[in-house]
Amino acid sequence: MKRRVTLHDVAARAGVSAATVSRVLTGTHRVSAETQARVRKAAEAMDYVVNAQARSLVGSSSGLVAVLITDITAPFYNRIARGLAEQVGAENRVCILSAPQTGGLEGELATITTLRQQSPEAIVLVGGVHESPDYRKRIGALARSLDAEGSRLVLCGRPAPTKGLPATVVEYDGEAGAFAITSHLLSAGHERILFLGGGQGSTTTKPRVTGYRRALEEYGIAPDPKLVAHGHSTRDFGYEEVNRILDAGSPDFTAVFASDDLAASGALASLREHGTRVPNDISVVGFDDIPVAVDTVPALTTVHVPLEEIGRTAIQLALHRHEPEFRNAQHAVLGTHIKVRDSVRPLVRRRP
Amino acid sequence: MKRRVTLHDVAARAGVSAATVSRVLTGTHRVSAETQARVRKAAEAMDYVVNAQARSLVGSSSGLVAVLITDITAPFYNRIARGLAEQVGAENRVCILSAPQTGGLEGELATITTLRQQSPEAIVLVGGVHESPDYRKRIGALARSLDAEGSRLVLCGRPAPTKGLPATVVEYDGEAGAFAITSHLLSAGHERILFLGGGQGSTTTKPRVTGYRRALEEYGIAPDPKLVAHGHSTRDFGYEEVNRILDAGSPDFTAVFASDDLAASGALASLREHGTRVPNDISVVGFDDIPVAVDTVPALTTVHVPLEEIGRTAIQLALHRHEPEFRNAQHAVLGTHIKVRDSVRPLVRRRP
Repeated sequence: MKRRVTLHDVAARAGVSAATVSRVLTGTHRVSAETQARVRKAAEAMDYVVNAQARSLVGSSSGLVAVLITDITAPFYNRIARGLAEQVGAENRVCILSAPQTGGLEGELATITTLRQQSPEAIVLVGGVHESPDYRKRIGALARSLDAEGSRLVLCGRPAPTKGLPATVVEYDGEAGAFAITSHLLSAGHERILFLGGGQGSTTTKPRVTGYRRALEEYGIAPDPKLVAHGHSTRDFGYEEVNRILDAGSPDFTAVFASDDLAASGALASLREHGTRVPNDISVVGFDDIPVAVDTVPALTTVHVPLEEIGRTAIQLALHRHEPEFRNAQHAVLGTHIKVRDSVRPLVRRRP
Repeated sequence: MKRRVTLHDVAARAGVSAATVSRVLTGTHRVSAETQARVRKAAEAMDYVVNAQARSLVGSSSGLVAVLITDITAPFYNRIARGLAEQVGAENRVCILSAPQTGGLEGELATITTLRQQSPEAIVLVGGVHESPDYRKRIGALARSLDAEGSRLVLCGRPAPTKGLPATVVEYDGEAGAFAITSHLLSAGHERILFLGGGQGSTTTKPRVTGYRRALEEYGIAPDPKLVAHGHSTRDFGYEEVNRILDAGSPDFTAVFASDDLAASGALASLREHGTRVPNDISVVGFDDIPVAVDTVPALTTVHVPLEEIGRTAIQLALHRHEPEFRNAQHAVLGTHIKVRDSVRPLVRRRP
């Protein structure tokens, strides 16, 4: 193996100080574009790899933001991740994503332990969770210990487990979205509405069920527990659950509120295979507004969640948390709104 | 800030040597499950973060595999990435993903420079590329310099830029897939077939066009350059290009071969909006077999690419490259096959 090129070799070649090379390559301070280009060119020509020791000697931070994402193929997650990655890039840091090595809280914490070895400036957890007392305690401890190290815990599309934690939290208003889309069905005359999908007790599903129930109650309709089918946020769950219902006889609902667009796409496929027309026979709405919602036939009326904006906002708040503008704005809740497409048919006109 | 817990503190608490703690936390050597659990528990209880210096003192490798992915929201990429991440986990390493900071070769190389700071055991580049002489030269230099450091360049869904590089390459047979699906259309009587989408000259698109042309020629049909519409592998491109064609008058083709399922889904939407029935009026096929292919109406006949298997195979070959079984098997080409669904109508029966 050849001798490793040092920071000073690159500095000499680029005609700048070693500190400048470090600033450029770790991306943590502002350096002119021209100098940046010169240093990068010298570093590449010399095949220079920054080593962690050199970095710590000049006292700069790692320039890394670590993101933990459960399933990279799920559009809900990967669109938040794209927003995160874009903003991390705009802030001159580098985004590293990792999937938990195994499922559940233990898997998430084990992966976090590994990510912390890279000394990230922030660790971002993406998406909902089943909050247990153990989860609350351990995430709280994590937030405090990252804070003590000068790093930051960021929760993205996930509520704060307890009040007063040193963490950046960016949520979206799932309950308002569920209330709005259920009201949309109710105002179209649908009173028997199946709630389909989402794990019972997950922080993603709970506000969606709450909004659904609250809308029914505002219309003077007692929620029927037989019309709530909890399961998973997957196409397979939506498909199989609606298959099960239709195979057992005539459905006793006129509309389906799928708690996510994937479950809605599965429900649409099952309805089509059973010869049930959407929206003529049954109306279907979803949640999230991921790309599949425009490719289903009919195109899906759903709740738009600003997934990429959630990601961008989280990074902005976390990295600028010491600035006056952001210091007291470390918990944001972004709005949601209905996207009306072609999957709802009015039954009768009715007002609450 | 509190005093940082050291490797030796964790070792004392777990009742093992410092070297064992290091082996467990960097995940690079085999340690019994029981000892692993004990060390991890102690490390978590003491909130221990491995630092790079301690790691280098005990001489173990980083345990990291770095993956570079252009667009995490594109199913073609993120399904390969899921296969990569799964196999990295199965090999007791940690997968870190990163998107290029800016587009093109410069962006890719700049991100690679940053990822190399983490001393990954391998750097994986995912998906096709426009190969230029400059690209070939610089990727070749990268492969050799990673090799000199004991790391490995891995190309996944991308061909080797030159022969004899010290790199692991896992491709899929795009040309055979394109030949098979074009032949499927030809044997159904379609002779005027629009090729839609894919950047001209990209390593992803080139074999698809070649397979399309070769099938036409085997049927004795001269490929018509007016029927090749290059563009992007996106839904928007498929939608807008077919809009443009249909708005200009009657199409002079009976079938569309979209070079990827996203472009196919856009084409289907445009055809539907123009009142053109698929497959009754025009047949449509895609490529890749990503999830949207089952949610379009009609469901899309397409070419299945084993995306997750490409990812898993690449990691297996790269991390075991010194073992006799894999030493001379560092270039793999995985097969593709047609997935017949509902988007093709036979015009007439015909044999070549």
